[in-house]
Amino acid sequence: MNRNTLIEQIKTKRSFLCVGLDTDINKIPRFLLEKSDPVFEFNKMIIDATHDLCVSYKINTAFYESRGIAGWQSLVATSNYIPKECLGIADAKRGDIGNTSEMYARAFFDPEASGMNFDSVTVAPYMGSDSVKPFLRFRDKWVILLALTSNEGSADFQNIKNGQNESLFESVIRTANTWADADRLMYVVGATRGEAFLTIRKHAPDNFLLVPGVGAQGGSLQDVCRYGLNRDCGLLVNSSRAIIYASGGEDFAVKAREEAMRLQKEMEVELNKFNFY
Amino acid sequence: MNRNTLIEQIKTKRSFLCVGLDTDINKIPRFLLEKSDPVFEFNKMIIDATHDLCVSYKINTAFYESRGIAGWQSLVATSNYIPKECLGIADAKRGDIGNTSEMYARAFFDPEASGMNFDSVTVAPYMGSDSVKPFLRFRDKWVILLALTSNEGSADFQNIKNGQNESLFESVIRTANTWADADRLMYVVGATRGEAFLTIRKHAPDNFLLVPGVGAQGGSLQDVCRYGLNRDCGLLVNSSRAIIYASGGEDFAVKAREEAMRLQKEMEVELNKFNFY
Repeated sequence: MNRNTLIEQIKTKRSFLCVGLDTDINKIPRFLLEKSDPVFEFNKMIIDATHDLCVSYKINTAFYESRGIAGWQSLVATSNYIPKECLGIADAKRGDIGNTSEMYARAFFDPEASGMNFDSVTVAPYMGSDSVKPFLRFRDKWVILLALTSNEGSADFQNIKNGQNESLFESVIRTANTWADADRLMYVVGATRGEAFLTIRKHAPDNFLLVPGVGAQGGSLQDVCRYGLNRDCGLLVNSSRAIIYASGGEDFAVKAREEAMRLQKEMEVELNKFNFY
Repeated sequence: MNRNTLIEQIKTKRSFLCVGLDTDINKIPRFLLEKSDPVFEFNKMIIDATHDLCVSYKINTAFYESRGIAGWQSLVATSNYIPKECLGIADAKRGDIGNTSEMYARAFFDPEASGMNFDSVTVAPYMGSDSVKPFLRFRDKWVILLALTSNEGSADFQNIKNGQNESLFESVIRTANTWADADRLMYVVGATRGEAFLTIRKHAPDNFLLVPGVGAQGGSLQDVCRYGLNRDCGLLVNSSRAIIYASGGEDFAVKAREEAMRLQKEMEVELNKFNFY
């Protein structure tokens, strides 16, 4: 999916919601366990119930890998069920030396090799340029690079300042922006720190930002929008647990839709404040 | 596998060789392609031919994921074929927020969840403490944390110096050593820079170091040993392509054994220089 299509989708749906499919087989309604692939059935029902309210689905690969081969089967099936008009994100946090990153890129971007055809993958920056560039060779695919994450440990290294008083996450953005433009590169920025978006936007005025940490992790959508929205919207705000586990009963998909709609409405208010049409 | 067992193995085998199973289905001998799982058959023959000469096998997960479900099947089968006396490394470069890293830990360390029971996993440090600690909760399992990698892009961020003139890779080691001791924590240090081991050993005198980059990537075993060996050996030197693709013909396992033996003999010379008995 290219940038124009993504922006069109945001305008049409009045939403920049990303639904996170961090699906834990131990947390889904028990009646699904008799299905041949309970996790895929769960995801399918979540997608059916929410796809007109969100512009993206993010699959957290860890939750699938933890179940071995069966989990990988659920992952492939789910990735192929994401509607074409929604940006599919493999939240995989990959990154390795060049020839290995190329293999990871095939895993998520090349359906002939792997059976999966995501639009984007999250990548860890620690290993530098040649660990990221192989993902950028695929047309209309995106790298979503970790910049400032939402977890407590993010302060351990991401906030280290160099001799010019620049934090590591700033160096990451400044450097990575020389590898690709905002049509191909997004950044992960945690929502737990609204004012940090000011710094991010200084270095990345045009890039889309994938924002986890609204909801279960405690960030405020209003703060994120105040500091993070740009003329193309420029935000994908993720919610996982608050949507997919809105109910633990047979009505889980209905409740997921209600929660997704609640967030979509909040997003519409923010887009209206911003005169985004 | 605990540290004492690893050191015993090194003493017994006079080797600190790690064989890297970066197995690409497009590079293995064609006669294997008629097997039901060609990559596993290849790995099995490599392991059968080399397990008395090495103390570890490193599986690069990217090469398996690139083949989707079939690749994940080869990964699980291979992981279970690694002999108990060899340290099994999932070279997966994972790392995410706490509850997600816990899922990755289950993927590689919990056979009841995932079918895999590796001894160790490589982890990327960018997200900090809570992204690493879940892997450390598993008894007798190791985290192998990226410190100074062997690729060109490693200089982009790993060499950034803070206000106290400390490079990021030094901060990573100094900080991570407060999370676990040298019985549970190793570091990845690229062999392309022999003298860098002096700096590493200043911060990590006791930790084992996993050293890629000897052979295809151009590092010298003698330099690595001069600066990197410690009283417990403290090194695992990986070779992947030079061993597994030593021949492209039906004699690939025989030639792999010859190359592994050549490296083991070189290692024995270095251990003797160091009076390591």
